[in-house]
Amino acid sequence: MELTYRPAKEKDLSALVSLLADDVLGRQREDTSVPLNQAYMSAFRAIDADPNNLLLVVEHEQRLVGMLQLTFIPYLTHTGSWRCLIEGVRIHEAFRGQGIGEKMFGYAISLARQKGCTRIQLTSDKQRPEALRFYEKLGFQATHEGFKLSL
Amino acid sequence: MELTYRPAKEKDLSALVSLLADDVLGRQREDTSVPLNQAYMSAFRAIDADPNNLLLVVEHEQRLVGMLQLTFIPYLTHTGSWRCLIEGVRIHEAFRGQGIGEKMFGYAISLARQKGCTRIQLTSDKQRPEALRFYEKLGFQATHEGFKLSL
Repeated sequence: MELTYRPAKEKDLSALVSLLADDVLGRQREDTSVPLNQAYMSAFRAIDADPNNLLLVVEHEQRLVGMLQLTFIPYLTHTGSWRCLIEGVRIHEAFRGQGIGEKMFGYAISLARQKGCTRIQLTSDKQRPEALRFYEKLGFQATHEGFKLSL
Repeated sequence: MELTYRPAKEKDLSALVSLLADDVLGRQREDTSVPLNQAYMSAFRAIDADPNNLLLVVEHEQRLVGMLQLTFIPYLTHTGSWRCLIEGVRIHEAFRGQGIGEKMFGYAISLARQKGCTRIQLTSDKQRPEALRFYEKLGFQATHEGFKLSL
Protein backbone atom coordinates (compact mmCIF):
# COMPACT_ATOMS: atom_id res chain seq x y z
CA MET A 1 0.00 0.00 0.00
CA GLU A 2 1.40 3.35 -1.13
CA LEU A 3 1.38 6.02 1.59
CA THR A 4 2.04 9.74 1.30
CA TYR A 5 3.12 12.02 4.12
CA ARG A 6 2.63 15.76 4.42
CA PRO A 7 2.37 18.40 7.15
CA ALA A 8 -1.21 18.88 8.37
CA LYS A 9 -3.13 21.91 7.11
CA GLU A 10 -5.96 23.84 8.70
CA LYS A 11 -8.47 22.16 6.41
CA ASP A 12 -7.49 18.73 7.85
CA LEU A 13 -8.43 19.64 11.40
CA SER A 14 -11.97 18.23 11.59
CA ALA A 15 -10.85 14.90 10.15
CA LEU A 16 -7.85 14.74 12.49
CA VAL A 17 -9.99 15.45 15.55
CA SER A 18 -12.41 12.71 14.47
CA LEU A 19 -9.49 10.32 14.16
CA LEU A 20 -8.23 11.26 17.64
CA ALA A 21 -11.71 10.74 19.08
CA ASP A 22 -12.15 7.33 17.43
CA ASP A 23 -10.23 5.59 20.19
CA VAL A 24 -10.98 4.06 23.57
CA LEU A 25 -9.01 6.75 25.41
CA GLY A 26 -9.51 9.55 22.88
CA ARG A 27 -13.29 9.51 23.02
CA GLN A 28 -13.14 10.54 26.68
CA ARG A 29 -10.96 13.57 26.04
CA GLU A 30 -11.67 14.98 22.60
CA ASP A 31 -14.49 17.30 21.53
CA THR A 32 -16.07 16.44 18.19
CA SER A 33 -18.76 19.12 18.37
CA VAL A 34 -19.46 21.28 15.29
CA PRO A 35 -18.26 23.96 14.74
CA LEU A 36 -14.83 22.82 15.79
CA ASN A 37 -13.69 23.75 19.30
CA GLN A 38 -11.37 26.73 18.80
CA ALA A 39 -8.79 25.16 21.11
CA TYR A 40 -7.90 22.78 18.28
CA MET A 41 -7.30 25.69 15.92
CA SER A 42 -5.07 27.46 18.47
CA ALA A 43 -3.07 24.29 19.07
CA PHE A 44 -2.75 23.67 15.34
CA ARG A 45 -1.45 27.19 14.71
CA ALA A 46 1.14 26.82 17.48
CA ILE A 47 2.33 23.49 16.03
CA ASP A 48 2.39 24.88 12.48
CA ALA A 49 4.41 27.94 13.53
CA ASP A 50 7.08 25.91 15.34
CA PRO A 51 9.88 24.60 13.11
CA ASN A 52 10.63 21.91 15.72
CA ASN A 53 7.11 20.48 15.60
CA LEU A 54 5.74 18.52 12.67
CA LEU A 55 2.18 17.19 12.62
CA LEU A 56 2.09 14.63 9.84
CA VAL A 57 -0.94 13.49 7.87
CA VAL A 58 -0.63 10.06 6.29
CA GLU A 59 -2.77 9.32 3.23
CA HIS A 60 -3.51 6.53 0.78
CA GLU A 61 -5.16 7.58 -2.46
CA GLN A 62 -6.13 10.90 -0.83
CA ARG A 63 -7.86 9.15 2.08
CA LEU A 64 -6.75 9.90 5.64
CA VAL A 65 -5.00 6.80 6.96
CA GLY A 66 -3.14 8.07 10.00
CA MET A 67 -1.40 10.87 11.83
CA LEU A 68 1.53 11.44 14.15
CA GLN A 69 3.39 14.37 15.65
CA LEU A 70 7.17 14.71 15.78
CA THR A 71 8.95 17.15 18.09
CA PHE A 72 12.67 17.73 17.58
CA ILE A 73 14.41 18.71 20.82
CA PRO A 74 18.01 19.79 21.43
CA TYR A 75 19.62 18.64 24.69
CA LEU A 76 23.00 19.04 26.37
CA THR A 77 22.81 15.41 27.53
CA HIS A 78 24.49 12.59 25.59
CA THR A 79 27.29 15.00 24.60
CA GLY A 80 24.87 17.50 23.09
CA SER A 81 22.24 15.74 21.02
CA TRP A 82 18.89 16.12 19.31
CA ARG A 83 16.05 13.77 20.12
CA CYS A 84 12.81 13.18 18.33
CA LEU A 85 9.73 12.82 20.51
CA ILE A 86 6.74 11.11 18.89
CA GLU A 87 3.18 11.60 20.14
CA GLY A 88 -0.38 11.38 18.92
CA VAL A 89 0.11 8.33 16.70
CA ARG A 90 -3.22 7.17 15.29
CA ILE A 91 -4.24 4.87 12.44
CA HIS A 92 -7.75 4.95 11.01
CA GLU A 93 -9.74 1.90 12.06
CA ALA A 94 -10.34 0.86 8.45
CA PHE A 95 -6.61 0.67 7.80
CA ARG A 96 -5.36 -1.27 10.82
CA GLY A 97 -3.57 -4.61 10.67
CA GLN A 98 -1.97 -3.84 7.30
CA GLY A 99 1.53 -2.88 8.39
CA ILE A 100 0.83 0.85 8.13
CA GLY A 101 2.20 1.57 11.59
CA GLU A 102 5.57 0.06 10.62
CA LYS A 103 5.65 2.20 7.48
CA MET A 104 4.74 5.35 9.41
CA PHE A 105 7.53 4.67 11.88
CA GLY A 106 9.96 3.91 9.07
CA TYR A 107 9.19 7.34 7.67
CA ALA A 108 9.43 9.03 11.09
CA ILE A 109 12.79 7.37 11.77
CA SER A 110 14.17 8.57 8.44
CA LEU A 111 13.03 12.13 9.18
CA ALA A 112 14.56 12.01 12.66
CA ARG A 113 17.86 10.83 11.16
CA GLN A 114 17.79 13.63 8.56
CA LYS A 115 17.31 16.11 11.40
CA GLY A 116 20.41 14.68 13.13
CA CYS A 117 18.58 13.04 16.02
CA THR A 118 20.42 10.28 17.84
CA ARG A 119 17.40 9.00 19.68
CA ILE A 120 13.66 8.66 19.27
CA GLN A 121 11.50 8.57 22.36
CA LEU A 122 7.83 8.15 23.07
CA THR A 123 5.56 7.11 25.88
CA SER A 124 2.73 4.66 25.47
CA ASP A 125 -0.18 4.23 27.87
CA LYS A 126 0.09 0.99 29.85
CA GLN A 127 -3.61 0.50 29.03
CA ARG A 128 -2.65 -0.10 25.37
CA PRO A 129 -1.03 -3.57 25.39
CA GLU A 130 -1.07 -3.87 21.58
CA ALA A 131 0.73 -0.56 21.20
CA LEU A 132 3.35 -1.66 23.76
CA ARG A 133 4.01 -4.85 21.77
CA PHE A 134 4.13 -2.85 18.53
CA TYR A 135 6.86 -0.53 19.82
CA GLU A 136 8.87 -3.43 21.21
CA LYS A 137 8.67 -5.17 17.84
CA LEU A 138 10.01 -2.00 16.20
CA GLY A 139 13.07 -2.19 18.46
CA PHE A 140 12.07 0.39 21.06
CA GLN A 141 13.14 -0.45 24.60
CA ALA A 142 10.94 0.33 27.61
CA THR A 143 13.89 1.43 29.72
CA HIS A 144 12.00 4.29 31.36
CA GLU A 145 8.85 4.93 33.33
CA GLY A 146 6.59 7.48 31.66
CA PHE A 147 5.32 9.86 34.34
CA LYS A 148 2.44 12.33 33.88
CA LEU A 149 1.15 15.06 36.17
CA SER A 150 -2.11 16.84 35.38
CA LEU A 151 -2.08 20.55 36.24
CA MET B 1 17.48 27.40 51.48
CA GLU B 2 16.98 30.27 49.03
CA LEU B 3 17.21 29.21 45.38
CA THR B 4 17.37 31.36 42.27
CA TYR B 5 16.44 30.25 38.77
CA ARG B 6 17.64 31.66 35.46
CA PRO B 7 18.10 30.55 31.86
CA ALA B 8 21.54 29.00 31.26
CA LYS B 9 24.17 31.12 29.53
CA GLU B 10 27.14 30.10 27.42
CA LYS B 11 29.49 30.76 30.31
CA ASP B 12 27.69 28.09 32.39
CA LEU B 13 28.35 25.29 29.93
CA SER B 14 31.48 23.74 31.46
CA ALA B 15 29.89 23.62 34.91
CA LEU B 16 26.66 22.15 33.51
CA VAL B 17 28.53 19.43 31.62
CA SER B 18 30.45 18.58 34.80
CA LEU B 19 27.15 18.29 36.65
CA LEU B 20 25.71 16.02 33.94
CA ALA B 21 28.82 13.83 34.08
CA ASP B 22 28.76 13.53 37.88
CA ASP B 23 26.20 10.75 37.74
CA VAL B 24 26.22 6.96 37.44
CA LEU B 25 24.63 7.08 33.98
CA GLY B 26 25.98 10.46 32.90
CA ARG B 27 29.63 9.55 33.33
CA GLN B 28 29.25 6.97 30.57
CA ARG B 29 27.82 9.37 28.05
CA GLU B 30 29.22 12.86 28.67
CA ASP B 31 32.56 14.28 27.55
CA THR B 32 34.32 16.42 30.16
CA SER B 33 37.46 16.99 28.09
CA VAL B 34 38.95 20.50 27.87
CA PRO B 35 38.38 22.50 25.71
CA LEU B 36 34.70 21.75 25.75
CA ASN B 37 33.38 19.43 23.05
CA GLN B 38 31.77 21.76 20.49
CA ALA B 39 28.68 19.54 20.35
CA TYR B 40 27.67 21.01 23.72
CA MET B 41 27.95 24.55 22.35
CA SER B 42 25.84 23.67 19.29
CA ALA B 43 23.17 22.04 21.46
CA PHE B 44 23.19 25.00 23.84
CA ARG B 45 22.70 27.48 20.98
CA ALA B 46 19.79 25.48 19.60
CA ILE B 47 18.14 25.37 23.04
CA ASP B 48 18.78 29.06 23.64
CA ALA B 49 17.31 30.05 20.24
CA ASP B 50 14.08 28.07 20.75
CA PRO B 51 11.37 29.93 22.68
CA ASN B 52 9.78 26.57 23.58
CA ASN B 53 12.93 25.28 25.26
CA LEU B 54 14.21 26.57 28.58
CA LEU B 55 17.40 25.25 30.16
CA LEU B 56 17.29 26.40 33.78
CA VAL B 57 20.23 26.92 36.08
CA VAL B 58 19.43 26.69 39.79
CA GLU B 59 21.72 28.53 42.22
CA HIS B 60 22.16 29.14 45.91
CA GLU B 61 24.36 32.08 46.86
CA GLN B 62 25.81 32.06 43.33
CA ARG B 63 26.76 28.38 43.55
CA LEU B 64 25.42 25.92 40.99
CA VAL B 65 22.93 23.66 42.77
CA GLY B 66 21.00 22.07 39.92
CA MET B 67 19.68 22.19 36.40
CA LEU B 68 16.68 21.08 34.39
CA GLN B 69 15.28 21.57 30.91
CA LEU B 70 11.68 22.39 30.10
CA THR B 71 10.16 21.95 26.64
CA PHE B 72 6.73 23.41 25.96
CA ILE B 73 4.85 21.46 23.28
CA PRO B 74 1.50 22.19 21.62
CA TYR B 75 -0.68 19.18 20.78
CA LEU B 76 -4.08 18.61 19.19
CA THR B 77 -4.77 15.84 21.74
CA HIS B 78 -6.75 16.51 24.94
CA THR B 79 -8.86 19.09 23.04
CA GLY B 80 -5.83 21.07 21.93
CA SER B 81 -3.39 21.49 24.79
CA TRP B 82 0.14 22.43 25.73
CA ARG B 83 2.33 20.04 27.66
CA CYS B 84 5.57 20.64 29.46
CA LEU B 85 8.23 17.97 29.03
CA ILE B 86 10.97 17.93 31.68
CA GLU B 87 14.38 16.37 31.04
CA GLY B 88 17.94 16.58 32.28
CA VAL B 89 17.12 17.13 35.94
CA ARG B 90 20.28 17.11 38.04
CA ILE B 91 21.15 18.23 41.56
CA HIS B 92 24.74 18.77 42.63
CA GLU B 93 25.92 16.02 44.94
CA ALA B 94 26.73 18.48 47.74
CA PHE B 95 23.14 19.71 47.78
CA ARG B 96 21.18 16.46 47.78
CA GLY B 97 18.76 15.39 50.50
CA GLN B 98 17.76 18.95 51.34
CA GLY B 99 14.43 19.21 49.56
CA ILE B 100 15.91 21.06 46.59
CA GLY B 101 14.29 18.71 44.05
CA GLU B 102 10.84 19.49 45.42
CA LYS B 103 11.57 23.22 45.18
CA MET B 104 12.86 22.89 41.62
CA PHE B 105 9.72 21.03 40.61
CA GLY B 106 7.53 23.56 42.40
CA TYR B 107 9.15 26.22 40.25
CA ALA B 108 8.85 24.16 37.06
CA ILE B 109 5.18 23.48 37.75
CA SER B 110 4.47 27.17 38.23
CA LEU B 111 6.22 28.01 34.94
CA ALA B 112 4.29 25.28 33.11
CA ARG B 113 1.03 26.68 34.48
CA GLN B 114 1.97 30.22 33.41
CA LYS B 115 2.62 28.88 29.92
CA GLY B 116 -0.89 27.36 29.89
CA CYS B 117 0.21 23.73 30.06
CA THR B 118 -2.36 21.24 31.30
CA ARG B 119 0.09 18.43 31.83
CA ILE B 120 3.71 17.85 32.76
CA GLN B 121 5.42 14.74 31.53
CA LEU B 122 8.82 13.17 31.96
CA THR B 123 10.49 9.81 31.71
CA SER B 124 12.78 8.42 34.36
CA ASP B 125 15.23 5.57 33.85
CA LYS B 126 14.09 2.38 35.59
CA GLN B 127 17.67 2.09 36.87
CA ARG B 128 17.06 5.12 39.12
CA PRO B 129 14.76 3.79 41.88
CA GLU B 130 15.20 6.89 44.06
CA ALA B 131 14.15 9.15 41.20
CA LEU B 132 11.08 6.99 40.54
CA ARG B 133 10.04 7.30 44.19
CA PHE B 134 10.70 11.04 44.12
CA TYR B 135 8.37 11.61 41.16
CA GLU B 136 5.64 9.46 42.70
CA LYS B 137 5.91 11.47 45.90
CA LEU B 138 5.44 14.65 43.87
CA GLY B 139 2.17 13.25 42.52
CA PHE B 140 3.36 12.05 39.12
CA GLN B 141 1.73 8.84 37.91
CA ALA B 142 3.67 6.20 35.99
CA THR B 143 0.77 5.52 33.64
CA HIS B 144 3.02 5.09 30.59
CA GLU B 145 5.96 3.06 29.42
CA GLY B 146 8.88 5.23 28.35
CA PHE B 147 10.28 3.83 25.11
CA LYS B 148 13.63 4.81 23.57
CA LEU B 149 15.18 3.89 20.24
CA SER B 150 18.81 4.75 19.51
CA LEU B 151 19.43 5.78 15.91
